[in-house]
Amino acid sequence: MVPKTHPRYRSLLNRDRIVEAFESGVLAKGGMIAHGRGETFDYLLGETTTPEALNAIKVTAALMVLSKNPVISINGNSVALAKDEFVKLARELNGKIEVNLFYRTTEREQKIKKLFEEDVKSGITLLGIDEADKKIPGIDHLRGKVSESGIYTADVVLVPLEDGDRAEALVKMGKTVIAIDLNPLSRTARKSTISIVDELTRCVPLITDYVVEYKKMDKLQLLKIVENYKNDENLKNTLIHISKRLNSMEI
Amino acid sequence: MVPKTHPRYRSLLNRDRIVEAFESGVLAKGGMIAHGRGETFDYLLGETTTPEALNAIKVTAALMVLSKNPVISINGNSVALAKDEFVKLARELNGKIEVNLFYRTTEREQKIKKLFEEDVKSGITLLGIDEADKKIPGIDHLRGKVSESGIYTADVVLVPLEDGDRAEALVKMGKTVIAIDLNPLSRTARKSTISIVDELTRCVPLITDYVVEYKKMDKLQLLKIVENYKNDENLKNTLIHISKRLNSMEI
Repeated sequence: MVPKTHPRYRSLLNRDRIVEAFESGVLAKGGMIAHGRGETFDYLLGETTTPEALNAIKVTAALMVLSKNPVISINGNSVALAKDEFVKLARELNGKIEVNLFYRTTEREQKIKKLFEEDVKSGITLLGIDEADKKIPGIDHLRGKVSESGIYTADVVLVPLEDGDRAEALVKMGKTVIAIDLNPLSRTARKSTISIVDELTRCVPLITDYVVEYKKMDKLQLLKIVENYKNDENLKNTLIHISKRLNSMEI
Repeated sequence: MVPKTHPRYRSLLNRDRIVEAFESGVLAKGGMIAHGRGETFDYLLGETTTPEALNAIKVTAALMVLSKNPVISINGNSVALAKDEFVKLARELNGKIEVNLFYRTTEREQKIKKLFEEDVKSGITLLGIDEADKKIPGIDHLRGKVSESGIYTADVVLVPLEDGDRAEALVKMGKTVIAIDLNPLSRTARKSTISIVDELTRCVPLITDYVVEYKKMDKLQLLKIVENYKNDENLKNTLIHISKRLNSMEI
């Protein structure tokens, strides 16, 4: 057990969660290596929500409140790290969460379905497993499977830890794609409409807080929050943020 | 299979090797996440040997040629990625390789021993398993086990992917500790005598090439290569290198 007073408590706790999820069959091997990649980026960000990330989080919350059919896409890593946080966010919206696995196997689908059993009983709609009979154009069979009432017809899709191909294909379908990705240089971050460069367990509760707040505002106020956001500029500023940190560090 | 023409061929091949080593029991789960962390640093370095790394590599080669008892320490990750490269380097020196596992189990020891069977027959001395009856002071039992004729009495130890505690304890024992670590900010990189911030399969063959060349030189010439090296300065320049790259990248 990592003591709560450890300066990197959250990072080490997340690592434990990833190992547990791998052992229980929720996470694929590739997901462990991917988590390590994310750890480094978070370390370089200073394991904190940057002003650039907060900017993207606010725009995300406004877009999700404005959306007619927002869907939260989840995979093995995001379930391992922040399942409860995603459920809370979904409850403030239309309750839709869609399972969207990079390495899709029936076993992993069922393991994840089981994890959401109680949430489904209390109102969450878990899509992407039994009724995933639509397809994202240009993405191969298993990776492209989506639900009609979920990602397929969503206007806004939140994709934490998504791969570049799929993020790009969703943008091509005309959707507003919001990525959560610790790598500001990834294809996912570059191709998505909005990219939140932040760690899941830090940023998802923040999105939820802003959603709660923004639900009290009118459409014009929300559009004002969204209108001046430029994703490429925000990503560039994130790179500058990391770059400055590296330059100022003592050996 | 990754095609050889892929711009990130080596990185993807290494990822396959890590997964294979995990499946065969050579690598611990923590080793998979650690590999992911390294992948990001390598990506930020541009997946290339920087001038700073080359500087450290040359000093390393000179120190190993000057050494009376140089030992190459290996663990699960380094065996998975660059076993043959380490064997080649050891053959140009005294042939000593010592197994030094972070998560030491008899099963993993024996798996690694088996991998080196042919090398041992042809002259490599594989230490750190059967005769590891000495201890690094200040390091707990299983992680501190070392061989008398190996790390315990070595004057120069090459430690690829070592943890900070152990690197620091070896320095305290008065040894010249040469780390290979993709994270220029790690405690291992900061505490070691020399830190090569480079990827194993790129830098170990370079060390070997310089060892071959330097074996033809006399002691005074070798001391000249070593004398002006400052590790903290070299690490600082590595950070500046990454920082500049990040600043100049287009989104």
